[in-house]
Amino acid sequence: MDLTEIYREIDGMEEKLIRTRRDLHRFVESGWQEFRTTALIAERLRGLGIPTLIGRDALDPAKAMGRPSAEEVEREKKRAAEQGADPALIEEMRDYTGAAAVIETGRKGPVIALRFDIDCNDLKESHDPSHRPVQEGFGSVNAGRMHACGHDGHTSIGLAVAEVLKKHEAELSGTVRLLFQPAEEGDRGAKAMAAKGLLDDADVVLAAHIYDSPEGQLGLAGTQTGLYATTKFDIAIHGRSAHAGFAPEEGASAIQAAALALVGMQSFLQDGRGSGRLNIGTIEGGTGRNVVPELCVMRAETRGSDTEVEQRLYHKALATVEGACNAFECTFETEVRGICPAGGGDPDLAVRIAAAAQAVPDFTYTQTELKNTGGTDDFACMMDAVREHGGKACYMGLLTPLKAGHHNSCFDFDERILKAGAKAFLTVIDMLQREGIG
Amino acid sequence: MDLTEIYREIDGMEEKLIRTRRDLHRFVESGWQEFRTTALIAERLRGLGIPTLIGRDALDPAKAMGRPSAEEVEREKKRAAEQGADPALIEEMRDYTGAAAVIETGRKGPVIALRFDIDCNDLKESHDPSHRPVQEGFGSVNAGRMHACGHDGHTSIGLAVAEVLKKHEAELSGTVRLLFQPAEEGDRGAKAMAAKGLLDDADVVLAAHIYDSPEGQLGLAGTQTGLYATTKFDIAIHGRSAHAGFAPEEGASAIQAAALALVGMQSFLQDGRGSGRLNIGTIEGGTGRNVVPELCVMRAETRGSDTEVEQRLYHKALATVEGACNAFECTFETEVRGICPAGGGDPDLAVRIAAAAQAVPDFTYTQTELKNTGGTDDFACMMDAVREHGGKACYMGLLTPLKAGHHNSCFDFDERILKAGAKAFLTVIDMLQREGIG
Amino acid sequence: MDLTEIYREIDGMEEKLIRTRRDLHRFVESGWQEFRTTALIAERLRGLGIPTLIGRDALDPAKAMGRPSAEEVEREKKRAAEQGADPALIEEMRDYTGAAAVIETGRKGPVIALRFDIDCNDLKESHDPSHRPVQEGFGSVNAGRMHACGHDGHTSIGLAVAEVLKKHEAELSGTVRLLFQPAEEGDRGAKAMAAKGLLDDADVVLAAHIYDSPEGQLGLAGTQTGLYATTKFDIAIHGRSAHAGFAPEEGASAIQAAALALVGMQSFLQDGRGSGRLNIGTIEGGTGRNVVPELCVMRAETRGSDTEVEQRLYHKALATVEGACNAFECTFETEVRGICPAGGGDPDLAVRIAAAAQAVPDFTYTQTELKNTGGTDDFACMMDAVREHGGKACYMGLLTPLKAGHHNSCFDFDERILKAGAKAFLTVIDMLQREGIG
Amino acid sequence: MDLTEIYREIDGMEEKLIRTRRDLHRFVESGWQEFRTTALIAERLRGLGIPTLIGRDALDPAKAMGRPSAEEVEREKKRAAEQGADPALIEEMRDYTGAAAVIETGRKGPVIALRFDIDCNDLKESHDPSHRPVQEGFGSVNAGRMHACGHDGHTSIGLAVAEVLKKHEAELSGTVRLLFQPAEEGDRGAKAMAAKGLLDDADVVLAAHIYDSPEGQLGLAGTQTGLYATTKFDIAIHGRSAHAGFAPEEGASAIQAAALALVGMQSFLQDGRGSGRLNIGTIEGGTGRNVVPELCVMRAETRGSDTEVEQRLYHKALATVEGACNAFECTFETEVRGICPAGGGDPDLAVRIAAAAQAVPDFTYTQTELKNTGGTDDFACMMDAVREHGGKACYMGLLTPLKAGHHNSCFDFDERILKAGAKAFLTVIDMLQREGIG
Repeated sequence: MDLTEIYREIDGMEEKLIRTRRDLHRFVESGWQEFRTTALIAERLRGLGIPTLIGRDALDPAKAMGRPSAEEVEREKKRAAEQGADPALIEEMRDYTGAAAVIETGRKGPVIALRFDIDCNDLKESHDPSHRPVQEGFGSVNAGRMHACGHDGHTSIGLAVAEVLKKHEAELSGTVRLLFQPAEEGDRGAKAMAAKGLLDDADVVLAAHIYDSPEGQLGLAGTQTGLYATTKFDIAIHGRSAHAGFAPEEGASAIQAAALALVGMQSFLQDGRGSGRLNIGTIEGGTGRNVVPELCVMRAETRGSDTEVEQRLYHKALATVEGACNAFECTFETEVRGICPAGGGDPDLAVRIAAAAQAVPDFTYTQTELKNTGGTDDFACMMDAVREHGGKACYMGLLTPLKAGHHNSCFDFDERILKAGAKAFLTVIDMLQREGIG
Repeated sequence: MDLTEIYREIDGMEEKLIRTRRDLHRFVESGWQEFRTTALIAERLRGLGIPTLIGRDALDPAKAMGRPSAEEVEREKKRAAEQGADPALIEEMRDYTGAAAVIETGRKGPVIALRFDIDCNDLKESHDPSHRPVQEGFGSVNAGRMHACGHDGHTSIGLAVAEVLKKHEAELSGTVRLLFQPAEEGDRGAKAMAAKGLLDDADVVLAAHIYDSPEGQLGLAGTQTGLYATTKFDIAIHGRSAHAGFAPEEGASAIQAAALALVGMQSFLQDGRGSGRLNIGTIEGGTGRNVVPELCVMRAETRGSDTEVEQRLYHKALATVEGACNAFECTFETEVRGICPAGGGDPDLAVRIAAAAQAVPDFTYTQTELKNTGGTDDFACMMDAVREHGGKACYMGLLTPLKAGHHNSCFDFDERILKAGAKAFLTVIDMLQREGIG
Repeated sequence: MDLTEIYREIDGMEEKLIRTRRDLHRFVESGWQEFRTTALIAERLRGLGIPTLIGRDALDPAKAMGRPSAEEVEREKKRAAEQGADPALIEEMRDYTGAAAVIETGRKGPVIALRFDIDCNDLKESHDPSHRPVQEGFGSVNAGRMHACGHDGHTSIGLAVAEVLKKHEAELSGTVRLLFQPAEEGDRGAKAMAAKGLLDDADVVLAAHIYDSPEGQLGLAGTQTGLYATTKFDIAIHGRSAHAGFAPEEGASAIQAAALALVGMQSFLQDGRGSGRLNIGTIEGGTGRNVVPELCVMRAETRGSDTEVEQRLYHKALATVEGACNAFECTFETEVRGICPAGGGDPDLAVRIAAAAQAVPDFTYTQTELKNTGGTDDFACMMDAVREHGGKACYMGLLTPLKAGHHNSCFDFDERILKAGAKAFLTVIDMLQREGIG
Repeated sequence: MDLTEIYREIDGMEEKLIRTRRDLHRFVESGWQEFRTTALIAERLRGLGIPTLIGRDALDPAKAMGRPSAEEVEREKKRAAEQGADPALIEEMRDYTGAAAVIETGRKGPVIALRFDIDCNDLKESHDPSHRPVQEGFGSVNAGRMHACGHDGHTSIGLAVAEVLKKHEAELSGTVRLLFQPAEEGDRGAKAMAAKGLLDDADVVLAAHIYDSPEGQLGLAGTQTGLYATTKFDIAIHGRSAHAGFAPEEGASAIQAAALALVGMQSFLQDGRGSGRLNIGTIEGGTGRNVVPELCVMRAETRGSDTEVEQRLYHKALATVEGACNAFECTFETEVRGICPAGGGDPDLAVRIAAAAQAVPDFTYTQTELKNTGGTDDFACMMDAVREHGGKACYMGLLTPLKAGHHNSCFDFDERILKAGAKAFLTVIDMLQREGIG
């Protein structure tokens, strides 16, 4: 492809890139509830003549984790329809979200897979008048939901990349798959897409994520390392209720067992082989002030710079829960709600991507590492899936000034990254087409 | 009064005693929400010509503790009206519940105060077909509310006592005050009635509570000791939220601070001067799995066989919360939602009451102590108020076989205690009229 | 017996009572190390013609708990000899301490057993010049050992009682056994004496203990209740050492496991059926600052107003240790070092004893209860042993003003209690001889 | 200098290098007790004509941390004399250890400082016959002391380097200072030497440490990063003793306060900016099983991959101790026993050193990083001192197969590293003389 020509085309699409991002930002949707987003993607891509599978056809339901209840799914489908999603497309999705598009050139060449995540955070967006989405009228209309991690931008970039690739299909060889992944937050969706076989023939898989630019200018990082492993899990401790005044000894306090477990499990955070994280994000227990509480439920997560470190911490945390429950005559159940390994790009690919991206005029600088201590992305599952059969993978950082950090209610990014990001994908695809995967 | 005559009258009222108790059991109301119960009491007593103050006129609002929100109060007033309460009486109450009736003979004589508590527990009543309220159609119609502590019986007894006393007014001297107290559960209402001055002239104050009969037969206990002191309090710990993966060190986990406090405060339960209790009944904290939680709220209570023991435990528990908060860079607020001292009847009065009650044919036995280890009743505040100016007080146990313990969803009592209880009050009043307070 | 005569004889022995007490106070000996004390008892009693078994002949070694090491025993035997104990008697003891004397009248009559405890506390006695033992030259000469619980007085009383009984043998019927028990501190010795069969024929067993007189004057309590149950136990937690900087994850910190257990086990102190106590008296663990500690050893005790309450607490404490060890990949061992049940005198006997003791002119008052919340005495094992075959038992309080509380380095008592105590025993024996055991 | 010539000279000194190392290994001395080692250094260096300051003349006593007691110092001086140290030299040291030698060429040129640490670990050396020091008769003769960190080798290398430099003094310019540092273990000695001004004129400071060779062959690492920051501190918690049975509420358990602090402080180990370590190495508390313990003493350390991370953890640990003490009505004292910042070599210098060391024939490989996650060396204080005035610094890893890890009782290294290490120092000095510091 002629990159100069391509860059000019993307420049011409800037207003469309921004409009799409803002529409998604406004009609924001949480993981496994992205019915309107998926419908929008399908309409756009099929409109361009790109075959696109959606919902249940784009993933393996058995591998979907951390799903909402059936009632919530129904409610959200209704909500999506009210917010403009085509009911026929919603029906086609059969309760699942996400989309997988493919551009098959018919010519021998590499199979290149691209991942774009589409879900939002469960967070209340700021109403502060200085917050641009408020100022310019594209703030979240869905209460308690906010695109505070840039996936609205990722999706908009993905659609632009698809449009340009389709236009230049004749200049390409091989295949490009575009995976619009649901439920990245909580690391719940990537496995289900990988399990559908969508990466089985991929020679390379790429994704990009918006990050803060330490330089205050646009840049690109082809990352060699950085994604943490994680397990998201729920714990329910069951005790025995009793009158707290008359017979405390007949009770078994689920709250006290939980408290002992919570203080105990902190002891396992240090590890000479890497860095760990442990968070008890929520707790809820008990029914009345004067009743020994019989149930206490927690939502927890462990992370690790290395999968082994994370798994050790996760198992020690559970062992502590078990020990505390034994002491208190309580029992417990735990359920994994999301999981992904640690990950990083293939070093040589990261270097080549950083070099190629220097051609993009919007970038002031490129680098081969991303300082992302503690972050996770279940794209790591896709990278592992591709590497398993000898493919390569890379996670790219789209560096742009942020108004506030990720998952903050005032998160916002410099929208110039939209066209820069689209150019980056196209530049890297061009490089891979010319040079091969390596 | 002629006790034989009185006992016959009460025997004739048995069906009414039971009907009233069952009506109250069915239209059960929680503390500070007893609008229908209060209206029913006012109608019955005023109908008998007994002057009766209700709601705000019967207590000092400034001393009311553990009140529901204004929204809840409005909702409950509406509910009470729908369940038959006279709207004019509800309006008269001005958002508060409870009733104070008075029988003034105009003749010189003792001022005798009687306390009857009227509220229920926040508990879901059993739907088991073997549970008599279910069988006989008087199960709770208000979800999550249940008379599981016998206050429906206490109120029914109080109304019968008032009726008989009014009928025999000519045979009495002095004054009898009947206090129908709201919000005994949680020890929230007695102080407000006492603060209204309703006990300022009382020479004696009496209350009775249904308890399980170890003998399996009806009995009466004139208690010398037994009520534990208690403080009901809420704790809200405020931390600082942060991304649990990227910057855990910028957060201050309110849940971890709470956990440390909860394990630490257990160390102060042993006391050579008496017995203590500590319960964290409920806990709720955090917003999302991957966010360091910034808020954790608990509902707690301390109890002690002796007020000093209870207060020491309460203050140590708070000191532990403070210590944990300091360690975690958290802050906290605490609010007392109910409080009452330890208490027991005047020993001589307990002995005289037990002796007098032997005249009641329904009782198989009487005793002067009540094994009530760990229970509380804010009637202790009323006893203290009367003793402060030299009066006497006694708490009586109405012993009757229970189907299940207090605060159990299958709680039920042998209704023969209703007429036995009414007779007990009248017998004791007769004894005090004849012998003086002592 | 003629009590007036007896009281006069005891008055005449006062200087001897005090001298003996002070000699024992000076040459103080810890549990299972009372070689000099035992030799002194044997010499005195045998000198009076009272048959006396000592050491291994006076107990069942298999039931002796909390014994010192063989090296310590050797060292202490040497020390005792240096402090005047007859080496032949030490040899006769065969490594065990304690004495059992018997006065057999040959006449049909009750078998009355008396227990006197002889050991001291592991405590450094005060060197303050205002401390009477310092002032008057009978302070402890054995470092880290102190009679801070009055057993020196008990032993002196026992010897005086034996002397007077022997003198009046002709006026007695039945048998009197005098058990000079080792190792009462830590509740380690009574079981071994009981297991020897020394109480198998006893109709009654009595003991007395010096307590503070709330009245500031001498008094006697015939106690109906009051002794707590207890278990004394050691816990050794074994972890895994590792370099704390390079590989903390390879270690298993015995100290952290212990800390988690210590905070957790406090949660089980409240019990509706009685009062509990839990103390971790000592802890020692670790070898170096930068090494994950592989061993942590604790000396602990539980107590309960009721044996069931105490046993529940003990087992919950161990379950918490087990739970913490499982969480930390540690193991543990525990060893019981002393144990005794809760106990109190037979109520009727307590009443009779209090009544009889009113004859003793030294006592200003008598009572039937002893406020001894939390104290233990393995005399409870002896009471149980006698009750098992239908006998009776009572524990008596010798009430006298104390300078400082029990186990305090300034503990001292008003020595007038020595003659009052001896008179109390003789008065009660006289009453039992005359009235029978009942 | 002619490196070929130098390498040949060092090869000729191998037997001496080994003999010196083994002598030091046998007569091993702990931090601040290295009187014999210091005397040996002084004798050797002064014998070569190298001016050498020792003990109090070589450091600033006010900055010495973690010192033994005066009694211990006296005892160790005596011990050193008995083990052959010249009493005159011991006297010259005036209670302090360590040595600072200088080779002043008088010619303009760089001031190059070299640090060699001389102390051992407080560890019992293995008696296993397979342990080479046992086999070949150079096992520790000082009980509880062992060279398990290679400082015996470092010292031997330092002496050989001094000897060769002195011999080739004419070929050098500028100054070489050789600092034989006491008390590196516990990070207690470097500050005191730096505070003496011995580095004030240094253009560069170098040290080397023996590490395990992952390759199983000799190698050299010029490290860019790796040393952790650390604080070594003692904590003494003071409570209030009481009889654990009678009046637990009057006590304040120092052990329970410590336990709460220990579990609480683990919560602060995770940090997005780096990696932390926390170890409670030892604990000791309480006097008797049935006494509420009034004292509990701990030896602790914190570490961090970055000084700020370590300091945050240290302060949070202390805040937790303070919070727990407040809850338990205890007080505490803490004393810093050792401290040093995080550190690494100047990157450019590390690269140049690794390149130069390739000339040493003994090394199979060189590298520019050292995987030393979690280790500390107070040489970091010396690096900071030199950088403060614009100098450069580097810490070198001498990579050699180890028999067992550092601080393990079977630690031993391949002694070929002695001559390789000496050559490395001389090669780097030659490079710096030729090329300048840069």
